[in-house]
Amino acid sequence: MSFAAAFELRAGGGATRHRIGGDALAAAAAELATEVAGRTVFLVTEATVWGLHGERLAALPAACSRLHRLVVPAGEAAKQVEVADSLWRAMSAAGGKRDSRVIAFGGGSVGDLAGFVAGTFLRGVDWLLLPTTLLAQVDASIGGKTAVDLPEAKNAVGLFHHPRLVVADTGVLATLPPEQVRSGLVEAVKVAALLDPELLARIERDRAALLAGDAAALAPVVATAARLKAGLVERDPDERGERGLLNFGHTLGHALEAEVGYGRLLHGDAVAHGIRFALRLSVLEGGDPAFARRLAALLDGLGVPPLPRLAAAPLLARLERDKKAREGGLTWVLAASAGEGRLACGLAPERVAGELAAFLNEPAGESL
Amino acid sequence: MSFAAAFELRAGGGATRHRIGGDALAAAAAELATEVAGRTVFLVTEATVWGLHGERLAALPAACSRLHRLVVPAGEAAKQVEVADSLWRAMSAAGGKRDSRVIAFGGGSVGDLAGFVAGTFLRGVDWLLLPTTLLAQVDASIGGKTAVDLPEAKNAVGLFHHPRLVVADTGVLATLPPEQVRSGLVEAVKVAALLDPELLARIERDRAALLAGDAAALAPVVATAARLKAGLVERDPDERGERGLLNFGHTLGHALEAEVGYGRLLHGDAVAHGIRFALRLSVLEGGDPAFARRLAALLDGLGVPPLPRLAAAPLLARLERDKKAREGGLTWVLAASAGEGRLACGLAPERVAGELAAFLNEPAGESL
Repeated sequence: MSFAAAFELRAGGGATRHRIGGDALAAAAAELATEVAGRTVFLVTEATVWGLHGERLAALPAACSRLHRLVVPAGEAAKQVEVADSLWRAMSAAGGKRDSRVIAFGGGSVGDLAGFVAGTFLRGVDWLLLPTTLLAQVDASIGGKTAVDLPEAKNAVGLFHHPRLVVADTGVLATLPPEQVRSGLVEAVKVAALLDPELLARIERDRAALLAGDAAALAPVVATAARLKAGLVERDPDERGERGLLNFGHTLGHALEAEVGYGRLLHGDAVAHGIRFALRLSVLEGGDPAFARRLAALLDGLGVPPLPRLAAAPLLARLERDKKAREGGLTWVLAASAGEGRLACGLAPERVAGELAAFLNEPAGESL
Repeated sequence: MSFAAAFELRAGGGATRHRIGGDALAAAAAELATEVAGRTVFLVTEATVWGLHGERLAALPAACSRLHRLVVPAGEAAKQVEVADSLWRAMSAAGGKRDSRVIAFGGGSVGDLAGFVAGTFLRGVDWLLLPTTLLAQVDASIGGKTAVDLPEAKNAVGLFHHPRLVVADTGVLATLPPEQVRSGLVEAVKVAALLDPELLARIERDRAALLAGDAAALAPVVATAARLKAGLVERDPDERGERGLLNFGHTLGHALEAEVGYGRLLHGDAVAHGIRFALRLSVLEGGDPAFARRLAALLDGLGVPPLPRLAAAPLLARLERDKKAREGGLTWVLAASAGEGRLACGLAPERVAGELAAFLNEPAGESL
């Protein structure tokens, strides 16, 4: 057994080992066993993932000193302060120590929650991340961001807490619902559009196989997208500069997700609409219209459903609260052409407001 | 205007400026104004402190862009997950941004809570700490530890988040209740006993003036104790080694505090009893009995009230859950003689249990 990709991401004074491949959990079994040997382990997971893939962790109970499985709600419902509180209390009552380990086994929400809980329990215990969705494997599992939501804003409470080991087993993706595959592919498109014309061309070419959940097609896309993101994170761990590129499509995307309702609009779909809007701004700022059309066509080709009818005003209010906002205003990520992403800070709010109103009034697929 | 002490503590990739003195808030007014200029500021405080000393921050509203005052309960009642949640939500609703500032103005509990909230809001906003109790000035305000409590354990949830600036104005200590002065002096005795025979002698000599809240007597004690702790923190920011010395008296102290009830036993008083027990273990491990008697006499002289009658079993269960515990067992801090603190990891649990039972059965003042 071997990995499609194995690399180390150095950040936050430590290093995260990343292992990616079609049978990565089996291939990383010895590494996982070493990580938990003699320790109390808190395995945070959700019921569906555990039911489908729990057997892949069958060696874990014998490898560690004590294993406590903590089952949390699926999806964004896991990322609540109250759920974090229930985990902290369970870990404290079970005698969790500073050298205990937290393992997150699930999608991006499970990882965000478990990483936040690990980073704050006893002022920080180490953790391992086993992402089981495409979205988590290409994006959320890289870079040490953890968070829970507030009713007022997504990811509003959290911290940077880098896991020791990330094992992305693309073999588990075969059981994903098709819309989850699509949602994950949007994040791969995002990073490809900004940084890697070759990956973008590959996604365009293999679109059908990728959407079908074909493991052979998915493995190199996950591996390349993860490496690209890891490179950005390593060069800018605290998101003071180029890591901000990864927010392409996320500025409006997060506002859309919150406005429509967490869980009612998939993260990747929200980001896809955010990218469409960012491309509109990019063209206004001198970007290549042909590239914008090409990217929009790819997003349409992934089957991203149209946005429901939304008013601009509440979205603008949410943008105003966006956590990336500085007192000087929002930063937008623009893409002028393939592989040429850039940050733009000075866009006039009234101009953005006008463009947003026009964008929301257009039927899907005609926004460029 | 000048400071009794002004130094920088480098840790966590940044630096914290410490300003200590009898009129430090006035002397640091320009620095404070620079920190908040053009920013949204969340001032976390409690009603009594604000009523007594709020006027010392009269220049703040004009210095920043927007000031939101967030009043939290006094004492340990502030350090609850629900209180943190209410602050996060208030900050989010008020449009808090990554470059907003949190200011903590109060005792150790206000600082612990506000620092935790600052460190986790939007994955971390910078903060300033203005400690108003002796306990906070000599101990809690140095080293970037933040936390809230769980019902199961004190300080069980938190993170290291170093403030940019700490201003300890000893002029505010004149309004402290006498038991709060005593409680703070215990932490000064702790660090002096471990590291600085000269400071220990000074506290013994000036005991009456210190207990009376005499600002001239308190300023050099606060300045020296703060510097000593800052030195330890700088050399061991993540508490992997010698910073652990600062837990002298805290291993049992935290368990006592939790068992008797947060707020019903003052932190410093709990630590004083913890020090008495640690001295008992120190002597058993070959420490100087005369030094142990001297330190116990000083603690008695501060007026630490006797412990209520307590059973050993629930305390031992709490020690077991202590966040400093590793899978290998508890680490105890021992003091063999003046200025000679050390960490001891291998004490047999059954021996500690026996000593604790004996300690709890002895009348106060006869424990050595």
